[in-house]
Amino acid sequence: MDSDYQPLLDVLAEVSDLNAASAVLNWDELTYMPKGGARARGEQEATLSRLAHQAFTSDQVGELLANLEAKGVGSGSEPADLVVHETRIQYDRMRLVPSEWVGRHSAAASRAYQSWAKAREAKDFSLFAPDLEIQLALAKERGSYVPSAADPYQGLLYFHEPDFSVDELDRLFSDLAAFLSPLLAEISSHADRVDRSWINVEWPEAEQWKAFRAATEAIGFDYHHGRLDPTIHPFETSFDRDDVRITTRIIPRDLFSGFFGSLHEAGHGLYERGLPEAFRRTPMAEASSSGMHESQSRLWENLVGRSMPFWQFFFPRLQALFPSQLQGRSATDVYRAVNWSGPSFNRTEADEVSYNLHVILRFRLERRLFAGELAVKDLPQAWRQEMKTLFGIVPEDDLAGVLQDVHWSFGGFAAFPSYTLGNVIAAQLMAAARDDLPELDRSFATGDFSPLLKWLGTHVHQHGARYTTKQLVEVATGQPLVIGAYRAYIEGKYRSLYDLD
Amino acid sequence: MDSDYQPLLDVLAEVSDLNAASAVLNWDELTYMPKGGARARGEQEATLSRLAHQAFTSDQVGELLANLEAKGVGSGSEPADLVVHETRIQYDRMRLVPSEWVGRHSAAASRAYQSWAKAREAKDFSLFAPDLEIQLALAKERGSYVPSAADPYQGLLYFHEPDFSVDELDRLFSDLAAFLSPLLAEISSHADRVDRSWINVEWPEAEQWKAFRAATEAIGFDYHHGRLDPTIHPFETSFDRDDVRITTRIIPRDLFSGFFGSLHEAGHGLYERGLPEAFRRTPMAEASSSGMHESQSRLWENLVGRSMPFWQFFFPRLQALFPSQLQGRSATDVYRAVNWSGPSFNRTEADEVSYNLHVILRFRLERRLFAGELAVKDLPQAWRQEMKTLFGIVPEDDLAGVLQDVHWSFGGFAAFPSYTLGNVIAAQLMAAARDDLPELDRSFATGDFSPLLKWLGTHVHQHGARYTTKQLVEVATGQPLVIGAYRAYIEGKYRSLYDLD
Repeated sequence: MDSDYQPLLDVLAEVSDLNAASAVLNWDELTYMPKGGARARGEQEATLSRLAHQAFTSDQVGELLANLEAKGVGSGSEPADLVVHETRIQYDRMRLVPSEWVGRHSAAASRAYQSWAKAREAKDFSLFAPDLEIQLALAKERGSYVPSAADPYQGLLYFHEPDFSVDELDRLFSDLAAFLSPLLAEISSHADRVDRSWINVEWPEAEQWKAFRAATEAIGFDYHHGRLDPTIHPFETSFDRDDVRITTRIIPRDLFSGFFGSLHEAGHGLYERGLPEAFRRTPMAEASSSGMHESQSRLWENLVGRSMPFWQFFFPRLQALFPSQLQGRSATDVYRAVNWSGPSFNRTEADEVSYNLHVILRFRLERRLFAGELAVKDLPQAWRQEMKTLFGIVPEDDLAGVLQDVHWSFGGFAAFPSYTLGNVIAAQLMAAARDDLPELDRSFATGDFSPLLKWLGTHVHQHGARYTTKQLVEVATGQPLVIGAYRAYIEGKYRSLYDLD
Repeated sequence: MDSDYQPLLDVLAEVSDLNAASAVLNWDELTYMPKGGARARGEQEATLSRLAHQAFTSDQVGELLANLEAKGVGSGSEPADLVVHETRIQYDRMRLVPSEWVGRHSAAASRAYQSWAKAREAKDFSLFAPDLEIQLALAKERGSYVPSAADPYQGLLYFHEPDFSVDELDRLFSDLAAFLSPLLAEISSHADRVDRSWINVEWPEAEQWKAFRAATEAIGFDYHHGRLDPTIHPFETSFDRDDVRITTRIIPRDLFSGFFGSLHEAGHGLYERGLPEAFRRTPMAEASSSGMHESQSRLWENLVGRSMPFWQFFFPRLQALFPSQLQGRSATDVYRAVNWSGPSFNRTEADEVSYNLHVILRFRLERRLFAGELAVKDLPQAWRQEMKTLFGIVPEDDLAGVLQDVHWSFGGFAAFPSYTLGNVIAAQLMAAARDDLPELDRSFATGDFSPLLKWLGTHVHQHGARYTTKQLVEVATGQPLVIGAYRAYIEGKYRSLYDLD
């Protein structure tokens, strides 16, 4: 082994451990921490983040990388090459932004989160606007640190989806809107063809929990190396591929919010669990990108969990837990109810047809904000106009409108596109898996999801950070990323469901 | 503020945050972590410990301390003086042992823990003996690094109870044994005078949990700044005075093991919660010593929780939770049952009369081991002989004998005396509190424990690490540490309970 390689691995392991410790503290904060512990927890997390950032972006790491690269390490396909290559990318990216900016941003984001929460309570955007102005300025500054980017928004996108240009996304989104908008309109005019009114009943909490646990276990989430816990805003986190935590929420009259939330987070968790063992505690043992991560959660939530074969398998199990709620119902009834589609105000609870339109709305508004064509103070009005254009409905207040997502409170602009990329990639992966495994639906219907998980492990998970998003899509499916499979999936499923021509 | 003081505070805050993060990871490991996560957790904890140790024992801290001391900071009674003074003590103590020893010890302790667990499973001490030899040698080495100590055992004691000499403890233990052994013998010959057979019934788990929660809440454990969770071996930990976690276990046929375990850990927690706010994230915001910490847990567990006034208050509440188990029973019945006394094999479950004899047994064996008068291989036999001498009974296997405590597996010699110091100090504190607050029993009987908690806050908790154990006992009680109050408490309580002359 090269004499500069072990010292590099030592730093990377230390950084990985510090990040894992941060993640444990954050998981605890969002699940079990007593409310009174918040101040101390904030201090502890700030210290761990600072130490991890310092260690990773240190001059020492730069020298080790330079030494290794001078000896040719980083350009081949040996393990050391892959680690050096990926570390170089992340190192350069993290060194772009001065740590002084990180400190300013962190303090401002904490204030902005508070005012966002207050504005939500008062349903009054103006309470959030001043802090949002600051977040926008900070985000523009961050984006401007990326030398290769044509403008700050492009620069910002580099931190989320380095593989994509804003123009590419713009074309992708236009192509999606071109068939999703008319499809949603067509569905809306036949809203009565799918009945979901009957699911609005009381679902006892203990049985909900059993259902979430059974469904996630069935698709392969490994409880020897993972947990499921209750929280307010569901998330997935992992402290190692051997310790993957998912969370969900229980809403007494909405079984399926928590149910699909569990499958969604379990999808993220299956990716983390499949990351390459040989690269533990290095940047290679990370997911390819946010979009790729989201492809895994959406795939298990929607393409599996909202499929008819899944319900052929799971309906009897659900019925055993909820005999009175599901009396006289069938797998088909559930399948139809959980695929109900229509215009709505809320992104995270949106159905598969309308979901991407919520992302497109945010993408459009963000671009206008960054181009200076839209002022922060005019956002609520612009939001309502876009809602009218895309969905034909207008939210009655800012809570259901411009204040619904937490992202902007921490300057998370250019982050939403990853969700749509996830949807599109999920469909393309599923189509490729079906080509390789023609018996897939039959195995789902018997409760065997292992062929699909194994396929994803081989074609996606085990590669870790080796490939960029676009590369990985091509490696896994043999084709560049296109919307064809997604369109075919959505059109096929919903035309049939709503009995459209 | 002195220009060297803020940099010192910054390092101390970083160390405090790293130690708190370690504690969170450890809490999670012992409560909720999936089994499969153990390897990664070990790595993460090792990294955090190493970073905290490096930061605290760095030359930079030594220079800051020296600069401050040269300017006279550290000898007065201003906050900066107290912080510098306590940091100096801890700094010098931690620098005594080379970090190379820490690395060797950590690896060996991990192996020794495994072989201890295996030996317990096989009830065969010989499986543990080779690793125990290594732990003994490492502990002797550690003790020899203390230049002021006459021998390695005295050196080792310095890390646990720096205030005490081995000879002092020897005298203290002899004085205790002189009245505890005959008292235990006397009680044993009247074992039939206290009936606890009736508590050996099924106590439903959900109600046990409610009882633990109600009792800890009643004595003042603050659930806005704390939690109670299930675990295998109960412990208390805190991540700040604002986030204090206690744990306990539920044994279906033994309500009172978990019940008094909860009160015990809550007692530790009340100390942590009372540490001085103004000194957060410095070594001053720590307990005075292990013995002082144990005094708080034993005080709430025994001098409060096993008192008649406590049961006058709590019996009706317990009866409401367990109406059938407690039918026809009274507060007096419970008070008597939970104070049953007699020879037993197990230290942690021992009653107040016999408990210290278990500590004395370990202290005697450890001293002979360190003096080379006893070989590791002969420990099981020596254990049985001491049991015969002190208790008149002999364990039937090593599991109930020499293998019962985990301490030796990590070289935790000279640690047991703190438990007995805790018992003795608790009684002396309680006697002083009673002098100041003559209505104490009356307030207990009505469920008001706040006068006692306030008294302990003022006289013990708020001082943090300002005083050594002996100093703090004198500050709090106006008298040096003596066994008088303890003897009066034990003799008074048990002579009456067993109707002895």
